Amino acid sequence: MSNAKGYAAFSATTPLGPFSFERREPREDDVVIDIKYCGVCHSDIHMVRDEWGGASYPMVPGHEIVGVVKAVGAKVTKFKAGDKVGVGCFVDSCTTCNHRDEDIEQYLPGLVMTYNSPEVGTGKPTYGGYSDHIVVKEGYVLRVPDNLPLDASAPLLCAGITLWSPLKRWNAGPGKKVAIVGMGGLGHMGVKLGHALGAEITVLSQSLSKKEDGLRLGADHYYATRDAETFEKLQNHFDLIICTVSANIDWNAYLQLLKPDGTFVVLGIPEQQIPISAMPLVSARRTISGSMIGSIKETQEMLDFCGEHNIVSEIETITIDQINDAYERVLKSDVRYRFVIDMASL
Amino acid sequence: MSNAKGYAAFSATTPLGPFSFERREPREDDVVIDIKYCGVCHSDIHMVRDEWGGASYPMVPGHEIVGVVKAVGAKVTKFKAGDKVGVGCFVDSCTTCNHRDEDIEQYLPGLVMTYNSPEVGTGKPTYGGYSDHIVVKEGYVLRVPDNLPLDASAPLLCAGITLWSPLKRWNAGPGKKVAIVGMGGLGHMGVKLGHALGAEITVLSQSLSKKEDGLRLGADHYYATRDAETFEKLQNHFDLIICTVSANIDWNAYLQLLKPDGTFVVLGIPEQQIPISAMPLVSARRTISGSMIGSIKETQEMLDFCGEHNIVSEIETITIDQINDAYERVLKSDVRYRFVIDMASL
Repeated sequence: MSNAKGYAAFSATTPLGPFSFERREPREDDVVIDIKYCGVCHSDIHMVRDEWGGASYPMVPGHEIVGVVKAVGAKVTKFKAGDKVGVGCFVDSCTTCNHRDEDIEQYLPGLVMTYNSPEVGTGKPTYGGYSDHIVVKEGYVLRVPDNLPLDASAPLLCAGITLWSPLKRWNAGPGKKVAIVGMGGLGHMGVKLGHALGAEITVLSQSLSKKEDGLRLGADHYYATRDAETFEKLQNHFDLIICTVSANIDWNAYLQLLKPDGTFVVLGIPEQQIPISAMPLVSARRTISGSMIGSIKETQEMLDFCGEHNIVSEIETITIDQINDAYERVLKSDVRYRFVIDMASL
Repeated sequence: MSNAKGYAAFSATTPLGPFSFERREPREDDVVIDIKYCGVCHSDIHMVRDEWGGASYPMVPGHEIVGVVKAVGAKVTKFKAGDKVGVGCFVDSCTTCNHRDEDIEQYLPGLVMTYNSPEVGTGKPTYGGYSDHIVVKEGYVLRVPDNLPLDASAPLLCAGITLWSPLKRWNAGPGKKVAIVGMGGLGHMGVKLGHALGAEITVLSQSLSKKEDGLRLGADHYYATRDAETFEKLQNHFDLIICTVSANIDWNAYLQLLKPDGTFVVLGIPEQQIPISAMPLVSARRTISGSMIGSIKETQEMLDFCGEHNIVSEIETITIDQINDAYERVLKSDVRYRFVIDMASL
């Protein structure tokens, strides 16, 4: 075992603070990673505040992890000391069921999340990326392309893959009209990735306050959803709408913006149930679907694509002692567009 | 023009009765059809009672039409006098837009319904199949396989295609677990067609009262949805659920019965909006979609498939003067499984 230091939540209602703990003794298929940067995801806040239930404390959050390999186990073949690597939302998964060839491990039972999950073998809680190092099974370690800056690559491990997976699954590309709802940590990655995939990208945001950024990052069009005309003008317009906001928006209004056979993909989980009318679905074979992060294989494909297209996140770097203030700013959407913690500050 | 006789609704609240009217003079691409049988669809009742709005009276309902070609226009090449043919829910559609190669004319503006729609050219209302003959553009006439009985083939033109289209689109076939919700005029066709396509078919019906029929028609399993255990036992079980009931059922409960990447298809339009939780969608990339009848190309494929597999509807034949009683029985689900009017009784 090795001594690790990090920042943890000690309860649902108190600020995060310094925490010392132990990482497992590396196994023969493990990679030991010196963490350089870790992104701050909105779900970290939901988790430490126990808003989704199931929290155990102390909890070390963080699942947008990038760093450098420090050591590898005897059977590790894909990585060596010095490699630039990343770790995303999960560190183990079911490998026995009949879905194992489908690259959908994120949707199956047996997923071990990067933090606040029982570790396979020890049963102890996993601890995340707000820490100095981590020990992860080779199959759950991603290669970060050498040409990408490590700090701005961190959010690719969650925000990036969360948008990449639905863009690819629903065939965003040349000739396709894609709307990204919300211009935040997730949405701005949707703009960059969707644009690089060749789709015509429209941002649908509450206001036009981030319009200049949206167009600069690759959007072709930018509309305010506060403006009722937006919903009239864009009727039957999109092949794909990816909704990154978890507010209780009117899904029926957005469904009407889809062409026949178009798909509305939900990424956020609104607190309340959303009333849906069957008519916009039946009358044009429209679809509502959901999506959650992506498989390890998809994540590596996304990182490789980002390397080829020089895509990273727009970030604001913070020191670890700024984390509690950063959480408050995330809740106010006061970040363009993702906080990343510099772990040298730990 | 030709004199036609039929049965019409004269208002939303009065019984249907005899009605004489004129059909258009056949054009060079028209087919004149002697109607032999016409199925009774639940939507006929919604339409004549103006429950969906837009009714104009007198209204001659009926869109499950089968008969024999009496005459053809000079430019008709696919049909000749004596052919067994059918007409479904629409008799013209948009042919100019950029979707025209996609075989989705039923979802596009410009669709001319078989009744209660403005006829192209004349602007007069179209009149449906509760009548002695009909004049229909060649491209909207379907060939009924010679080996199928005409009476029991009539419901294929709406009930059949309404189930066929989603079964095909979402790949029902060998190795796929498909649930049909509701064992009525639509549902029983889903059982027959899904079984013939090679899928493993489960009927989910309120009670077990039609279980024997369901198994006889091709279902592998039959469960009562009144039994709460059904929803526990079948968690994460189906690739595809096709919901033929328009009651306000709990869609979230059904979504939980889908495997990852499974699809719940809505065919009926519940009166009220249905509250949906994002969680069952996001946590397993499940999908809710809708479907409405099918394209002309799909309808012909379905009829040819039915010919090869000897599939028709389970029917109860009535005379035209029984139509008002039949409507009452449809509303009580007191029919196994579709009423078909024998037009010789007109």
